[in-house]
Amino acid sequence: MRIGIIGTGAVARTLAAKLVSLGHQVTLGSRSRDNAAATEWAHQAGPYGHAGTYPDAADFGELVINATAGTVSLQALRLAGADRLAGKVLVDVSNPLVFAPDGEVTLDPVNSDSIGEQIQREFPDTRVVKALNTLSAPLMVDPGRVPGAHNLFIAGEDPEAKARVRELLGEFGWPAEVVVDLGGISAARSTEMLMPFWLNMMRHVGHTDFNYSFKIAE
Amino acid sequence: MRIGIIGTGAVARTLAAKLVSLGHQVTLGSRSRDNAAATEWAHQAGPYGHAGTYPDAADFGELVINATAGTVSLQALRLAGADRLAGKVLVDVSNPLVFAPDGEVTLDPVNSDSIGEQIQREFPDTRVVKALNTLSAPLMVDPGRVPGAHNLFIAGEDPEAKARVRELLGEFGWPAEVVVDLGGISAARSTEMLMPFWLNMMRHVGHTDFNYSFKIAE
Repeated sequence: MRIGIIGTGAVARTLAAKLVSLGHQVTLGSRSRDNAAATEWAHQAGPYGHAGTYPDAADFGELVINATAGTVSLQALRLAGADRLAGKVLVDVSNPLVFAPDGEVTLDPVNSDSIGEQIQREFPDTRVVKALNTLSAPLMVDPGRVPGAHNLFIAGEDPEAKARVRELLGEFGWPAEVVVDLGGISAARSTEMLMPFWLNMMRHVGHTDFNYSFKIAE
Repeated sequence: MRIGIIGTGAVARTLAAKLVSLGHQVTLGSRSRDNAAATEWAHQAGPYGHAGTYPDAADFGELVINATAGTVSLQALRLAGADRLAGKVLVDVSNPLVFAPDGEVTLDPVNSDSIGEQIQREFPDTRVVKALNTLSAPLMVDPGRVPGAHNLFIAGEDPEAKARVRELLGEFGWPAEVVVDLGGISAARSTEMLMPFWLNMMRHVGHTDFNYSFKIAE
């Protein structure tokens, strides 16, 4: 499959490397054509890895992943272009974290809106699926870093798009039964709002190799 | 121990019944002295169960539990009286859920503040411990309803107060090692912000007998 990734940060490159290793073609998209992180990554990735602009990545992908910071996602996706994203599945892995000078971390939007919903509203012809925004990048593509069964959460309006994302998560090593479908894209609100708790847990645990798991009575 | 509970709803009565069964004396406090839920509960609870006003419950308790809805907690605790709460451990189990007519559920406060922090700020001589606000009332006092090991989260400024709450949770059946101390009272923000996710999980699971559990790499 040809996959376009919007963003060039650690999450983007981790997902890109895994996708290439699985035999997919990937274009890592950045704001400028000469982004050092993207061109270096593409050079190392071999013939299946490419670097380009946001529009290049959106054009390239049969499926597109938004791996930018949530606070700049809309801006990046506007540059990618609504026409290039139309009809496609867009996996939104972002969280709208705002880091204050005093160390306080908050979310914007929050509570009555989310980045997932904002993207779906602004790009109504794109099939947005919120996914993978509840764990660290290394764990996203290597669930075995944490022992036992643990969970992922997806949300979106389009069942077929969610089924395709579930398949992709399966390629990453996540069995279908651990992927919890929380419903429509408004549920993105609730998974983005896990972030403050996740950050506290990270401080408590001392590293990022942990994940939610649910104990449920029969 | 003598325990005062601020509130008379399902959470208050569930906690009260468990505490009485453990041999504690409990006063269930309500806005008015003739609250039907409280007087009926006290009648059924036997000699260890009492009903009274918010000030009565605050006076009575060596330890006090806030089991009111988060949106009215400050108001209830003001009526209970800062002087009566001074020096005491106050276990805050509330969540500030706001139910809109269209079914949307949001939190107020959220993101940059929490009910736990608001209470601690307004009652600086009270030792607030946020606890038990991440699961259903029946499960709070009967962790065996859900199989295996699963987690509780506490937050607060006073280590000795948190140790006493940990003991109380132990009496409820929660082993010390499953109770995660997330730090100061500002961490209440992050556990209150789990609520929208918990509500989505409840819809997905179809009942409330589930709980967070963490899978952590060694």
